[in-house]
Amino acid sequence: MKKFINGVDQVENQMIQGMVKAYPGYLRKLDCGNVVVRANKKEGKVALISGGGSGHEPAHGGFVGEGMLDGAVAGAVFTSPTPDQILEGIRAIATDKGVLMVVKNYTGDVMNFEMAAEMAEMEGITVKHVVTNDDVAVDGSLYTVGRRGVAGTVFVHKIAGALAETGADLDEVQAVAQKVIDNVRTMGAAIAPCIVPAAGKPGFELSENEMEVGIGIHGEPGTHKEAMRPADEIVDMLLDKILADLDYSGSEVAVMINGAGATPLMELFIINNRVADVLAEKGIKVYRTLVGEYMTSIEMEGFSISLLKLDDQMKELLDAKADTPAWKE
Amino acid sequence: MKKFINGVDQVENQMIQGMVKAYPGYLRKLDCGNVVVRANKKEGKVALISGGGSGHEPAHGGFVGEGMLDGAVAGAVFTSPTPDQILEGIRAIATDKGVLMVVKNYTGDVMNFEMAAEMAEMEGITVKHVVTNDDVAVDGSLYTVGRRGVAGTVFVHKIAGALAETGADLDEVQAVAQKVIDNVRTMGAAIAPCIVPAAGKPGFELSENEMEVGIGIHGEPGTHKEAMRPADEIVDMLLDKILADLDYSGSEVAVMINGAGATPLMELFIINNRVADVLAEKGIKVYRTLVGEYMTSIEMEGFSISLLKLDDQMKELLDAKADTPAWKE
Repeated sequence: MKKFINGVDQVENQMIQGMVKAYPGYLRKLDCGNVVVRANKKEGKVALISGGGSGHEPAHGGFVGEGMLDGAVAGAVFTSPTPDQILEGIRAIATDKGVLMVVKNYTGDVMNFEMAAEMAEMEGITVKHVVTNDDVAVDGSLYTVGRRGVAGTVFVHKIAGALAETGADLDEVQAVAQKVIDNVRTMGAAIAPCIVPAAGKPGFELSENEMEVGIGIHGEPGTHKEAMRPADEIVDMLLDKILADLDYSGSEVAVMINGAGATPLMELFIINNRVADVLAEKGIKVYRTLVGEYMTSIEMEGFSISLLKLDDQMKELLDAKADTPAWKE
Repeated sequence: MKKFINGVDQVENQMIQGMVKAYPGYLRKLDCGNVVVRANKKEGKVALISGGGSGHEPAHGGFVGEGMLDGAVAGAVFTSPTPDQILEGIRAIATDKGVLMVVKNYTGDVMNFEMAAEMAEMEGITVKHVVTNDDVAVDGSLYTVGRRGVAGTVFVHKIAGALAETGADLDEVQAVAQKVIDNVRTMGAAIAPCIVPAAGKPGFELSENEMEVGIGIHGEPGTHKEAMRPADEIVDMLLDKILADLDYSGSEVAVMINGAGATPLMELFIINNRVADVLAEKGIKVYRTLVGEYMTSIEMEGFSISLLKLDDQMKELLDAKADTPAWKE
């Protein structure tokens, strides 16, 4: 394993320290552990918190800031944060308008976030949550009952975060977060695995000419392995499954082409070239496209396509001002 | 070679198409080839053009937009654009205030941009240029006489672009671009090579425990190969060379931790953690830090550190409004 790290036990902490040192105007790290919150707490708004295992950068700390999250909790690589850690985050960001937790659907994450919420409620903090589950590849997987929450989660951060920033109530912010979840679908593929530092070896194996279709963001198995194909054919296969899952006909969508960590932008643009053409053929109007790394899997070589079916409210909130390390608007 | 592409002869064109389809509000592709210009041409300002071989995305097309470039020319992967291609770009963006070309110091780039400028001058377009050469690793290399232009080039785009946007004259814009060049230094390292699609095999070889120190952005050899070391020691080695090359004592700097393509953000933040600590120890004040992919080498696994010594003018222009696909301010 060759990585630019200092020791497998220092990865998460030094990453968070390095992130906060890069963006001191945006982020503050809590003393208790790997939790980042806005450098300047904003009162009078619903506070949004998200997080999960480390290894998905810029998610989630990179999305802390005006118009998106108020706090993000980073567990060990690909490991849920602890309830105590999440509770510290909730305490730090809580306002009298309450807290919304944006949780990806993994058994450990859901359990620990819910446990933290219960503890916070006992302290008089109002906490609600939504669970993202945008991955259409498989129902249930290594760490999940039901569908997995993947890159589409970032649309929830953006849109619910923008509504929260206006001073909307907790119920309204939760409702719009759920609306995004109801309208976003994602699927991905990978051609090379990543190495969790503490494991020291690749999370899965692929032969020289093989890809994993429907891969999860921790390298969990997808629908199947098959021989590598041209990019356009892979896109078509993923889009077929996404478009079969939700009726996008005649709608406007936001597209996210998300890099898994080691996939060059060159290839993500080649992928988008096909996505744009297919959607145009099908009469689905692209309102906006995002290409880049939003929800990575360390250095996995792969990508996902997310399609969010938009209405006027979501369009306005998607384009509303955001000022975070990884999403500026 | 496993890549998300459709054919090695379609890479550059489909990439540019996919980029323009992602950002139609920002970019327009010229019919003549792989040249992108602002979707809405702005008159009354010096027009900035840059470019080079493809494979460095988001450079350079991703930096076309308000406050940065007016056009970018993309050659084949790691290959200089042709004079004709550059001339088409110059023609498309030229205004009565003239054109500034930002060229990285590679023999082919310098020659072809200069040739294009001569042709443009014959058509009555005023063209000046600057040549970036921020890489302190080696003097002269595979494609270069003198030092190589690498990630520090993006600071030139940003700062000269911001001044151009104010309506400043060509001489002033050229002068500030040269000031950035005079004050920025970069050095990098890599632990895994990239594959140029048309070549089909890695550009260099490293053993399982080896790194290349002082690597160029096309995988050109650096100062030496050596056994892999902890991230902090690699950072110290690179910073030593950078800090020995220019007197940064008591100054304020902008830091860029640039990922080469396959290096996860996790590792770039770990690197920044050490960079921030070393600069603090040495009394060099960090005005601002950028962490991410600015000037990549397809899927090379590596990074570079750039330090730009700032004055008040550069600080103001660095923070001035920019609205491009890859840099928003």
